[in-house]
Amino acid sequence: VLLDMPEGLKLGGEKREVTLLMSDLRGFTAMAERLEATEVVALLNHYLSAMVELIHHHGGTIDEIIGDAIFVLFGAPMVMPDAARRAVRCAINMQKAMRGVNEYNFQMDWPEIEMGIGIHTGEVVVGNIGSTKRSKYGVVGRTVNLTARIESFTVGGQVLVSPTLINAVGRGLILGDEVKVHAKGMREPLKCRELLGHGDYPELMLEAEETIFAMLSKPLP
Amino acid sequence: VLLDMPEGLKLGGEKREVTLLMSDLRGFTAMAERLEATEVVALLNHYLSAMVELIHHHGGTIDEIIGDAIFVLFGAPMVMPDAARRAVRCAINMQKAMRGVNEYNFQMDWPEIEMGIGIHTGEVVVGNIGSTKRSKYGVVGRTVNLTARIESFTVGGQVLVSPTLINAVGRGLILGDEVKVHAKGMREPLKCRELLGHGDYPELMLEAEETIFAMLSKPLP
Repeated sequence: VLLDMPEGLKLGGEKREVTLLMSDLRGFTAMAERLEATEVVALLNHYLSAMVELIHHHGGTIDEIIGDAIFVLFGAPMVMPDAARRAVRCAINMQKAMRGVNEYNFQMDWPEIEMGIGIHTGEVVVGNIGSTKRSKYGVVGRTVNLTARIESFTVGGQVLVSPTLINAVGRGLILGDEVKVHAKGMREPLKCRELLGHGDYPELMLEAEETIFAMLSKPLP
Repeated sequence: VLLDMPEGLKLGGEKREVTLLMSDLRGFTAMAERLEATEVVALLNHYLSAMVELIHHHGGTIDEIIGDAIFVLFGAPMVMPDAARRAVRCAINMQKAMRGVNEYNFQMDWPEIEMGIGIHTGEVVVGNIGSTKRSKYGVVGRTVNLTARIESFTVGGQVLVSPTLINAVGRGLILGDEVKVHAKGMREPLKCRELLGHGDYPELMLEAEETIFAMLSKPLP
C-alpha cells in the first residue's frame, strides 16, 4: 500500500540564491569528555546564547543547532539583497564575541573554546521539509554540503569565505591567505580565502591565523 | 560585559548510554539537481513521512531531520532497556519500506532512491541544548560523530552496526561482512558489520550488499 501524500506536502520548494554560514567549535568533543555533563551543557548553552543573539541582530535565520554547530541562513525565508554582506559582518562579530565568552569560561573554571566559521553563497532548494507530522523550513542542495566542507577546513578563530561569497559581497572585503578546499565530486579545489575584515568596519578586523603552522601543530591522525 | 546565564540553562546535562540511528540517501544531492525544486521537496517529504512513521512505531525519538538525513535516538529522552534491539528492528523495517517508497517514486516519474543506515551504541551527554531563546532536547559527544561516520561508510540498501551495538543487542543478530570504519582521533579502525537480520524476525531479512563491487562501481573522486 502506498502512502497518500497530503496536498500540503506537495506545495513548496523553490530554487533561490542564499548565503549560508556554518560555525562550530574546534576540539569540542574531546574537551567535553573531560568535563561533567552539566558543565558541557552549561558551557555550550552560554556560548550558543551569545552567538544566537548576534545572528538575530544581523538578520540571520538559524536553521539548525546541532551540538556545538550552528547553521544559519541569510536570504531565506526572507529575500535579502545584502545577504552576503550581512553574513560577513555577522561572522566577524561572532569571532570578536568569543573573547567575552572565554572570559566567562575562565571565571567558571571552564576551558577556553575556539570557533571556526565557513560562509558560502549559492543556489539551494528552500521549502518546508519533513514528514506530514513534523516539517520545518529548511534548505537542501550541494551548496549546503559545500558550506559544511569549507567550515571543516577552518582553524580556531578563523572565518573562511568561498569565491561566490566574495563575488556576492563585491568591494570592501579584506582577505588573507588562500585555503584550497577539496570536496567530493569536484575536480578542482575551491579556492577559499581567509576573511580578515571589511573596509567599512575598520573596528572589526580579525587577526590572520597561522594556518599552516596551526595545521602542523595538530597531532597527526 | 558578560552575559548572565539564566538559571534554567544551568540545569540539565546527564551522561547516558543510548543507541543512535542515522540514515541518509545515497547520491541525493546530485539527483536533486536534475529535478524541479517542487519535486525535490515532494520526493523528500514522501520518503521522510514513510520513515518517520516507522521510527515512531518502534519507539525512536527523531532528534533532527537535516535535508535527506534523519538522526534518531533510542533510550533518550526515555530510558529504554531494549534500545539497541529496537533500533535494529527499526532499521531493517526502514530498509524494507524503501520498496514501497520507490514504487510511489516510479508512479510519479521520480528517480529511485537508496538509503544507508548506521547504528551505534555509546555514552552521550543528553540535555536541553541551545540559547536562552531557543533550546531543544539533544545529545552531544563522540558517539554522535562516530554514528555519522559509520553511516557514511554504507552503500545504498545497507545497515552497518558497531561492535558496541552488537554487544548491546546480545544474541540473535544475523550479520554479514565486516566493514572497517576509520575515524579521526582513533588509532584502530572500528570493526563494523553489515546487519542482515535478527533470528526472531525471519520475515525481515535484508540481502547482503556487494560492498566491494558497489564501492568500485562508483565514479572515482
